[in-house]
Amino acid sequence: MTPTRHQTDSAVRRLEALGLELPPVRPSSKYDNHRRVDSSIHVAGQLPFKDDELLGQGVLGRDVDLDTGRELARHAALNALAVAAEALGDLDRVRIVQMLVFVASTPEFGLQSKVADAASDLLLDVLQENGRHARTAIGVASLPLNTPVEIQMICTAA
Amino acid sequence: MTPTRHQTDSAVRRLEALGLELPPVRPSSKYDNHRRVDSSIHVAGQLPFKDDELLGQGVLGRDVDLDTGRELARHAALNALAVAAEALGDLDRVRIVQMLVFVASTPEFGLQSKVADAASDLLLDVLQENGRHARTAIGVASLPLNTPVEIQMICTAA
Amino acid sequence: MTPTRHQTDSAVRRLEALGLELPPVRPSSKYDNHRRVDSSIHVAGQLPFKDDELLGQGVLGRDVDLDTGRELARHAALNALAVAAEALGDLDRVRIVQMLVFVASTPEFGLQSKVADAASDLLLDVLQENGRHARTAIGVASLPLNTPVEIQMICTAA
Repeated sequence: MTPTRHQTDSAVRRLEALGLELPPVRPSSKYDNHRRVDSSIHVAGQLPFKDDELLGQGVLGRDVDLDTGRELARHAALNALAVAAEALGDLDRVRIVQMLVFVASTPEFGLQSKVADAASDLLLDVLQENGRHARTAIGVASLPLNTPVEIQMICTAA
Repeated sequence: MTPTRHQTDSAVRRLEALGLELPPVRPSSKYDNHRRVDSSIHVAGQLPFKDDELLGQGVLGRDVDLDTGRELARHAALNALAVAAEALGDLDRVRIVQMLVFVASTPEFGLQSKVADAASDLLLDVLQENGRHARTAIGVASLPLNTPVEIQMICTAA
Repeated sequence: MTPTRHQTDSAVRRLEALGLELPPVRPSSKYDNHRRVDSSIHVAGQLPFKDDELLGQGVLGRDVDLDTGRELARHAALNALAVAAEALGDLDRVRIVQMLVFVASTPEFGLQSKVADAASDLLLDVLQENGRHARTAIGVASLPLNTPVEIQMICTAA
């Protein structure tokens, strides 16, 4: 019996090949993790939580280095993907439209694009064509819980 | 004669029960307070103006305390609701999709979510189910006119 | 033979009358300059590049003055218009919906709206009625490559 395409080449499999898995979505009492209008699914800002623990704190250019910032961006993007998969029922049904990457930065730090690239790579590696997205990366003064990175997305059904 | 549902349980009545009323919308010569595409109504960034006066200035974590920030977030959200009601003709027709909360913050301030919660509470108290929204809260270096809080929304017809 | 409307009163002609021309779009290997969902075209954050050179660096309120910031905002908006025109095939087919203006700012700088006005003026001068837009201007700690201004847009077909 030959395995089906879904079994051998799904987004979840590609995620596993990166040593990652889709985390559970963290609910909030004040807002929804996603809301829909027409075909757009607006995903609420996601922090780099893993197993209910925030993976880092601080500011790029001061006490968080670029590689750490990139790893945190990957995890924030992973959490956004988990919300999108929940909204659409299956990670293979997720198509990304836009990603907004917030990087807590000193006034001198100018490598926000390098941080955001790690999140973009994850989307493209896992979702391939469906992971293509418009993007804006900015450096902000600080973020909730002093997370170094926060990611907001708009996605739609593939 | 029994009062109609609209008279006893409208969004405007719930607003009044909170001691608030829908303020007039402040026009700008450079941009529109809202623009529509498909079912999405994009509400321009709103500041905590009341009666043409900005209710506060400064930065959270330095010269604006959390309670003041929360009160200003409520007023910025109220002004966004006024724009949404104008766009849709009636506050009861407003359904929120997404809210982006900008909080002028020091690099050490990490309570942007607590500030944003005050705006979220207002939306949920006044619009109930229609007030549910995806949300992103971030801390920025500074904001127009040195307002401590600015709120941008996407809404649609209920 | 009378000239057609397109020849005498096109968006490109109005751009030329301002001494500007539509620049080429800069591709990125990590993300797309625009992605579409329903009628919305999400334009990725654009920097004030001209001929592959970033026109300025620094922070408003510290080492970049207001007039320079405004000129950079015009160029960032021009690059966003170029992406929109590429997406829709013709600048006359572009209708702006929303513009988000990020201004690298000190905590004391409060003139982000004045910076953003220069971008708004460009949209209105060039696209006239189609240039009307909702807008949010914010001050951020820093931006990619230390650009003083970055502009993100949502547009649609006129």
